[in-house]
Amino acid sequence: MNNKELIDRRARIMGENAPLFYEEPVHIVRGEGVWLYDADGKKYLDVYNNVPHVGHCHPHVVNAIAKQAETLNVHTRYLHEAILDYSERLCATFDDSLSMAILTCTGTESNEIALRMARQHSGGMGIICSNFTYHGNSTAVWELATGFYEDGQSPSPNVKAVPFPDAYRPAFDLTGDVLWEAYANEVKLAIESFEAEGIGFAGLIFCPIFSGEGLPDVPPLYMQRVVEYVHNAGGVFISDEVQAGFGRTGKNMWGHQYYGVTADIVSLGKPMGNGHPVGGVVARADLLNEFRNASMYFNTFGGNPVSCAAAMAVLDVLEQEKLMENAVSTGDYVIQGLKKLQDKHDLIGDVRGHGLFFGLELVTDRTTKQAATAEAKRVINEMRNREILISKIGPHDNVLKMRPPMPFSKENADQLLSTLDDVLAGI
Amino acid sequence: MNNKELIDRRARIMGENAPLFYEEPVHIVRGEGVWLYDADGKKYLDVYNNVPHVGHCHPHVVNAIAKQAETLNVHTRYLHEAILDYSERLCATFDDSLSMAILTCTGTESNEIALRMARQHSGGMGIICSNFTYHGNSTAVWELATGFYEDGQSPSPNVKAVPFPDAYRPAFDLTGDVLWEAYANEVKLAIESFEAEGIGFAGLIFCPIFSGEGLPDVPPLYMQRVVEYVHNAGGVFISDEVQAGFGRTGKNMWGHQYYGVTADIVSLGKPMGNGHPVGGVVARADLLNEFRNASMYFNTFGGNPVSCAAAMAVLDVLEQEKLMENAVSTGDYVIQGLKKLQDKHDLIGDVRGHGLFFGLELVTDRTTKQAATAEAKRVINEMRNREILISKIGPHDNVLKMRPPMPFSKENADQLLSTLDDVLAGI
Repeated sequence: MNNKELIDRRARIMGENAPLFYEEPVHIVRGEGVWLYDADGKKYLDVYNNVPHVGHCHPHVVNAIAKQAETLNVHTRYLHEAILDYSERLCATFDDSLSMAILTCTGTESNEIALRMARQHSGGMGIICSNFTYHGNSTAVWELATGFYEDGQSPSPNVKAVPFPDAYRPAFDLTGDVLWEAYANEVKLAIESFEAEGIGFAGLIFCPIFSGEGLPDVPPLYMQRVVEYVHNAGGVFISDEVQAGFGRTGKNMWGHQYYGVTADIVSLGKPMGNGHPVGGVVARADLLNEFRNASMYFNTFGGNPVSCAAAMAVLDVLEQEKLMENAVSTGDYVIQGLKKLQDKHDLIGDVRGHGLFFGLELVTDRTTKQAATAEAKRVINEMRNREILISKIGPHDNVLKMRPPMPFSKENADQLLSTLDDVLAGI
Repeated sequence: MNNKELIDRRARIMGENAPLFYEEPVHIVRGEGVWLYDADGKKYLDVYNNVPHVGHCHPHVVNAIAKQAETLNVHTRYLHEAILDYSERLCATFDDSLSMAILTCTGTESNEIALRMARQHSGGMGIICSNFTYHGNSTAVWELATGFYEDGQSPSPNVKAVPFPDAYRPAFDLTGDVLWEAYANEVKLAIESFEAEGIGFAGLIFCPIFSGEGLPDVPPLYMQRVVEYVHNAGGVFISDEVQAGFGRTGKNMWGHQYYGVTADIVSLGKPMGNGHPVGGVVARADLLNEFRNASMYFNTFGGNPVSCAAAMAVLDVLEQEKLMENAVSTGDYVIQGLKKLQDKHDLIGDVRGHGLFFGLELVTDRTTKQAATAEAKRVINEMRNREILISKIGPHDNVLKMRPPMPFSKENADQLLSTLDDVLAGI
């Protein structure tokens, strides 16, 4: 069946606007490691997918799923060791205060719990988020995606968005520490507004690497000050580690650890089961028990033995194949390569990244920093035509988003860099 | 590791109140067909679990998962046939007007979409539900679970609960058609209240077999009148088929079809992937396209090839093993057996059911219908000690809930009925 037929069938059964990548969509039929194969046998270097965290179809994960699926798959109201073994191993990777877990099926479900926990604990309803974030697709969580609403405001009075911290396109005419203090002060002001409006402040939720915002470089000072303001006001800090977690940033298992701060609640999703639908919340014991006691929360599929087996296998491979070390060394190698490209191509305004997650901000003019939105679109489509899969992010849709499976090698990096060099030369 | 150690570990890592079945919880390690096995090798007849719909660890489903997991597991922004093949096959089991699908990971996620769709379409916010329902665990969906709130009211002004239809414990001093018209009239009144309050009416959501409410026998008249009121007011009827769907009721693939009504939106979950986390929404094309166009909805794991393979395999087995036919014949057989037990045991106030889903209402007095809540608890624990797993439901927690995997045979039924006979004799 050709692509046109598949696209027509999609429109009929999934809707005209069901999201699809690239001007010429790719019909993928097989995956292995960092590679995806299309129906014609063409091989694509996957520099986009973080969900197949330890590599597409990793045999250790596949075997764990198959073995457990043929043994038992049932909910958690019976005793089973898998959820205990996994939850204990997971919690051990966090600060001691983050000692308890609830397993879910998706990042959205995890953030739903995080918001419910925060609001229940504080008695307030006010949640602060960044002004260009995405935390999931349910009603309460989608209220946080203020950048997707026409007026840039949440439809809910219980959500206030602060300008995300960014030194490349600063929201204030300031530099250095004063700039970060000014950004952090926005959080303080939002807390005060919630209190003044009688809504009360519940907590703040950030992706600690601000991935949807385009991966701005943020110093520890900013996050430390933010968490201080949040805690001083009796709120909780929720770190959404759906993008940043499980060693993606290389140096730390969890994105928030980079800043030397401790989260009160952490939400997990995407890479956790290498594609198997599993997510979770790790939280302070008092918060989690309080939520359990008040809510009777139960998740039918959450924490079932197959999901736990998949998630456990991901942790195994992460350790056995030293993938965090790889994220550091290959990540640095890619950043150096991208910086060399920046010297060569005026289109590259800024090179940013954490471990194996890179943002390349494209601008038509380095002085005015005019976003090269159309050019970014051409680059990702041209890269796709040359069999490398990447995407784009950021409020101006001009930041190339590159976030390969964790076994991404220097050889893979060379292919990415040389192809990107060629493509940029032709833009 | 003994049960006490497992329970202690659970309390430490999952919380004291993480829900667990039975006074003496069961440590399950293996499942096969209608059987679950504990760590000591004891074999339990599973008369509770509807999620392993075609039987625990059914080899056809397990193989489908394993084969696809080793081939490709990726999101739906690339072209792939699995989601199209499955969605088309799924939609073909509904009325023609229900022609499009969105796949999710859980029933909660499905109901989230259903509510967002209904509210967006109507422009109103008001949702009507029954007063003892459960549709999931996210903020917006949990607002519908009014029976779990202390005052029996939703915390949201956008939710109104109507008394669920029940002739065994009627909310009105009426019988026959007049009773059902009175129940339906409550829906009309709720719609009028929403309009009067300026909230606007969006839609009504029911589990068509009222499973959480204790499986009351409801005639087509009631549901037809309700859907008429909903449609006349410009609202949508959401049928939550998480419990009733996929042939559970035997005679119909979908619970709402029994009443001769057509739903506008249908939500799916639990049995869809035999335990693999998959859910979905099937809806009228205009509603689904409208939602897609307005919301940019995307679900990372939803509709991935592995989830589709699991869900497809469930439909295969359902057909190949004629499990709906079995639900009719074995279902009738169980109902006859339960009615015989009712003749013998005064504790049984009412026998109800649909296909392979049974409710046995226990009362201490058949005239006053005093709920035998404590006795129901003793029965399920005593059944567990005799290696049969059941549970209980209903606003008085006195309705035995029996809902085995679909391959449940007459021989299994005999074991259930004779053990229940013994246990009831000892209460």
